Amino acid sequence: MTNIKDLAKRAGVSVTTVSRVLNHHPYVSEAKRIKVERAIDETGYLQNMNAVHLSKGKTNVIGVILPFLDHPYFAQVLIGISEKAQAKGQTLMLFPTNYDAEKEQEALLMLRQKQLDGVIVCSRVTPLHVLEDYVQYGPIVLLEQRKSDQFSSVFVDHQDVFNQALEYLYQKGHRNIGYTIYRRNGTHSKVREETYRAFLARHDLPFNKDYCFDGALYLEDSIDVLTKLMKLEPSPTALLITSDQVAAGFLIHAKAFGLTIPEECAVIGLNDEPIAKALKLTTIHIPLKAMGEALLDQVLSPHRENRPFDITLIERQTV
Amino acid sequence: MTNIKDLAKRAGVSVTTVSRVLNHHPYVSEAKRIKVERAIDETGYLQNMNAVHLSKGKTNVIGVILPFLDHPYFAQVLIGISEKAQAKGQTLMLFPTNYDAEKEQEALLMLRQKQLDGVIVCSRVTPLHVLEDYVQYGPIVLLEQRKSDQFSSVFVDHQDVFNQALEYLYQKGHRNIGYTIYRRNGTHSKVREETYRAFLARHDLPFNKDYCFDGALYLEDSIDVLTKLMKLEPSPTALLITSDQVAAGFLIHAKAFGLTIPEECAVIGLNDEPIAKALKLTTIHIPLKAMGEALLDQVLSPHRENRPFDITLIERQTV
Repeated sequence: MTNIKDLAKRAGVSVTTVSRVLNHHPYVSEAKRIKVERAIDETGYLQNMNAVHLSKGKTNVIGVILPFLDHPYFAQVLIGISEKAQAKGQTLMLFPTNYDAEKEQEALLMLRQKQLDGVIVCSRVTPLHVLEDYVQYGPIVLLEQRKSDQFSSVFVDHQDVFNQALEYLYQKGHRNIGYTIYRRNGTHSKVREETYRAFLARHDLPFNKDYCFDGALYLEDSIDVLTKLMKLEPSPTALLITSDQVAAGFLIHAKAFGLTIPEECAVIGLNDEPIAKALKLTTIHIPLKAMGEALLDQVLSPHRENRPFDITLIERQTV
Repeated sequence: MTNIKDLAKRAGVSVTTVSRVLNHHPYVSEAKRIKVERAIDETGYLQNMNAVHLSKGKTNVIGVILPFLDHPYFAQVLIGISEKAQAKGQTLMLFPTNYDAEKEQEALLMLRQKQLDGVIVCSRVTPLHVLEDYVQYGPIVLLEQRKSDQFSSVFVDHQDVFNQALEYLYQKGHRNIGYTIYRRNGTHSKVREETYRAFLARHDLPFNKDYCFDGALYLEDSIDVLTKLMKLEPSPTALLITSDQVAAGFLIHAKAFGLTIPEECAVIGLNDEPIAKALKLTTIHIPLKAMGEALLDQVLSPHRENRPFDITLIERQTV
């Protein structure tokens, strides 16, 4: 794929000059304009993307499987992927799946048919053993906590996330602590439950299955969490809400449920989205954009790597 | 591009069967599995995307120019574009520009070099006369209020948006009404200012240049709006905030500025994003997803069309 820098180099002019020619800016000499136009024509002819594909067996297209385009978590990851893709001359093909297995299969099928050079899986329902069968056709990179020599992966340590958040709430005096998830069968739901149970055991606290609230991803899902929580006896005095969107909704709607935060229920979120700062939500920062960049790097890399990223607890006013 | 439906048709089996084969589901007969595998191999060989491109002179890749991936307005539009692209077997190449003209030029350059079949422009800094020069290379569709025989366009009537919102505030007794925009030189800023001035003239109200607040797009931009507003004398008693994100931030941060809403300042937003419902924000609904679908339809259509979409004022509790 030819970009403006390539054209500048080929024409022997500055990037600014190329940009001016493309934009019909008046202050460009005729000589330079001709050089740039010639470079455009030559590269268009010589480097026709499709011809390049056939000769190299490469498409420079990377598939991105992600469940939702309108959730800030995935939007931040996608920004990282996209900026890095631009820098590396890669096209992104988006597969927003809404967790529909068939949509995920479309991407895997295209990988198999060499219509994609690689696939980034931001979240999935397809089982791991199925993905393993497709690695022979091209690299598959996972945004999940996975030590594997089949896949590269980019992740934060969800055990660490849960331990930091739960111990912080414990230190603040809480003993009835609940948490939210999106999917019971989600990729990290098991490690989260195990970490939660280990935390309880460590502090000799009882397990209460109703303290895990599922189906919580979007802002409005907080109403369901609040509805369930208000019926519990004893009700949790603190919640680890694993999506700042839901935590934000929880703060916004709590008043209507007669719940004062943090006095009656402390809240710690996850991701550190802009809304978290606005609402002074205590949360855990996840470097989503940097992780997106790493996903794109990994899908282009000949080496498989499992890359952990650091997290940071951000103390604000909801605990 | 081969999809699961094509494979099912070619193999003479159901879509479910293809899906099961791809997913290694046990309940598939050996005969059917072989049929599907054969269809996959055949289509992979015969319909190799790149070979198809060269023969048809088409890439089935559509460029999408949009300033930001992490703003709910553009995310909703992109969902519509993306769902329709999947249904029509089109690949999307994303150009998140942050309003950098060079990034927009990369997309136009790729259109010129036949690396894209068409370009959807969700928002831009490149002047219209420059875009007009690129229409010869392929369709360019604009998400903006534009009657043009050069471009297809998809839009809402921004004059109508402003008139409905301003007259509604006037009916509610407001006489000092301000409004926010993102860019002073933005595509719709001029029509908005003209509509605002016409509204003032119609009701014999004075124009106050400080009542237009710019730089307002993200939630946190509301702090700047609040800071400026609190210094004004007389201060507006109502604001039309042309982004629900900023309106949400305004509601959240108002208390810290000692401002009661709607008593001391009424607020009407724009877009009807999920946060608007949560915060009971009065706003104007824009059918962004449907407009995204229309953008993709138009870029594939041989006919140029300028398609207006309807708006709806949603009364909640901030006016």
